Amino acid sequence: MHDCNSAGFTAEDSEYMARALRLAEQGLYTTDPNPRVGCVLVKDGRVVGEGWHRRAGGPHAEAAALAQAGEAARGCTAYVTLEPCSHHGRTPPCADALTAAGVGRVVAAMQDPNPRVAGGGLARLREAGIAVACGLLEEQAERLNRGFVRRMRTGRPYVTGKLAMSLDGRTALANGDSRWITGEDARRDAHRLRARSSAILTGIGTVLADDPAMTARLEGEDILQPLRVVLDSRLRTPPAAKLARQEGRTLIATACDDAARRAALEQAGFEVMRLAVDGEGRMDLAALLDELGRREINELMVEAGPTLNGAWLRSGLVDEWVAYMAPCLMGDGARGLFSIPALGNMDERYALRWLDVRRVGADLRLCFATDAIRP
Amino acid sequence: MHDCNSAGFTAEDSEYMARALRLAEQGLYTTDPNPRVGCVLVKDGRVVGEGWHRRAGGPHAEAAALAQAGEAARGCTAYVTLEPCSHHGRTPPCADALTAAGVGRVVAAMQDPNPRVAGGGLARLREAGIAVACGLLEEQAERLNRGFVRRMRTGRPYVTGKLAMSLDGRTALANGDSRWITGEDARRDAHRLRARSSAILTGIGTVLADDPAMTARLEGEDILQPLRVVLDSRLRTPPAAKLARQEGRTLIATACDDAARRAALEQAGFEVMRLAVDGEGRMDLAALLDELGRREINELMVEAGPTLNGAWLRSGLVDEWVAYMAPCLMGDGARGLFSIPALGNMDERYALRWLDVRRVGADLRLCFATDAIRP
Repeated sequence: MHDCNSAGFTAEDSEYMARALRLAEQGLYTTDPNPRVGCVLVKDGRVVGEGWHRRAGGPHAEAAALAQAGEAARGCTAYVTLEPCSHHGRTPPCADALTAAGVGRVVAAMQDPNPRVAGGGLARLREAGIAVACGLLEEQAERLNRGFVRRMRTGRPYVTGKLAMSLDGRTALANGDSRWITGEDARRDAHRLRARSSAILTGIGTVLADDPAMTARLEGEDILQPLRVVLDSRLRTPPAAKLARQEGRTLIATACDDAARRAALEQAGFEVMRLAVDGEGRMDLAALLDELGRREINELMVEAGPTLNGAWLRSGLVDEWVAYMAPCLMGDGARGLFSIPALGNMDERYALRWLDVRRVGADLRLCFATDAIRP
Repeated sequence: MHDCNSAGFTAEDSEYMARALRLAEQGLYTTDPNPRVGCVLVKDGRVVGEGWHRRAGGPHAEAAALAQAGEAARGCTAYVTLEPCSHHGRTPPCADALTAAGVGRVVAAMQDPNPRVAGGGLARLREAGIAVACGLLEEQAERLNRGFVRRMRTGRPYVTGKLAMSLDGRTALANGDSRWITGEDARRDAHRLRARSSAILTGIGTVLADDPAMTARLEGEDILQPLRVVLDSRLRTPPAAKLARQEGRTLIATACDDAARRAALEQAGFEVMRLAVDGEGRMDLAALLDELGRREINELMVEAGPTLNGAWLRSGLVDEWVAYMAPCLMGDGARGLFSIPALGNMDERYALRWLDVRRVGADLRLCFATDAIRP
């Protein structure tokens, strides 16, 4: 059921929905596994209440806005970036709360892709005699919750691969040195990407070479630390790795069933998960996404070396690559981006679709999708 | 002597000078070894004559504009993109022609960097009682004649290196296949770059692998074909190479003194030139630029493979790199951009300065300079 139509919105409607979207963005780093939602209540051309969802278990955006408006909510228009819920989750249904408050009209940016809602919230409002419209700034609303939407629709997270490279496509010197290719602004931008992610994944190669912390660090921001995921087929992660001593959890996905190593890692604070391998003995990335989806991971960020990046590229499972290109050259002796088997002819190259190109400080940020799955 | 000042120009002055610059651009592909020059004659707010320099030996821009204006030139303002010449070259001095026509005021975008002029044209006009101003849209005027200006000031051409690459910094598959990485719009743009160049240089590796024509091809455009230059230290160019059978000349720069090979190549239509080698037995690129300067080459375009590009990068002699980046990935097995000795640490990487970044069709065009000479 697609209970939406985009007709009949006014410029005023757009303005308030844009405001609701900005409010929703306040929850960008904290709402996991819930979606980011904003709500603005308007009566007689005046905002009488607004709110956003901050943290799972806390009040929904609608509840926060209604609390602020009090009696003034009666007869108002409610702008919400996501269809109000109709089910009892951690909090009571927002559709009922809006009805009880006497709201006269509800404008939603998009339907809730959650199959437990999926138009049910809007239907419930309509049944209560409230005017309902849906589909205003829908694309922006979907983009804000691209991970939640993806998981609700497919059971898998939205996957973003992050790359940092020189102009000539190099990520590290032959000796492994790579700090820092990109500038401060690009690194801060990458931390924003980490902070909005539900999980950050890397490979055992990176863990052994760099002993990274893999946390999201943003000055002055409240961040729900993403789950750290290490692909480590043979359980070579050192129990003393920094990863285990950071805020938040670290999950090791492995194909190894060595009970002693597993115990040592669990003792150090890691969670260890067995993952299926494909026909060639490689970790099954699709199965990994299914598992992360079951764990309510909305957005997965991949920060890996050329071997694992090559495997992700070949899998076709990455929705978006974000490449920070620094204004430098490192030469052919330095390491590349994607280890893949040599191509036999030009038709086999991976075609990209540009999503965005912009300057970030002294670096360029190139966002692109590789749509086709290649052999 | 710097006989210029930028004060006191009106919006009208800027408008007519911009028009003169657009006229000058008409000669972009044909004026070699002369500069591109445009001239607009304005009287009582009306253009009474305009012209541009088309071809060496043909009329200068001022002469063309004066011929068009006839008697109307008396008392007009002349806008010229380059200081009018004061010397007898292939044509009589334009400063004298402007004086004879009774022009009342001359506005020049820049002084002529030609040491035979260098302010002498403006001085001559002033002596004749004509009001003279210089320096309007000077930067644009210099850019239009970057090669001529460079050669007049240093005796060497302005050097542009052209690259065509995948997003991951690859120029060809391991098997050498590279047609075509970039799209039609980018290839056309590269032909515009060729057409404005006085010479196009490549290495013997590219000649042997691709047997290129190295001509500038632009639908409907009159083009003075650039000199083709091949760096071929051991005279391995096949006398039957396509290069010899194209419009225009081909010069082979070599360190080899095999008289028989040289004779065979000259017989085939090539010109062969001995070039000094540096301490490591490599062709001396600085000496090459000196020689090309003596041959009145204003702009040199380098279209080479990774070995020669690496040598140019290390030389620090390239003024500007133009990299067309195609929306594709080719993987680490494919060939890179710059063969240089492996760097020992990150401080040794070549720093770039962005000059321009824009879309050209489906590709990105990244223009940058590498200012520092590295070891």
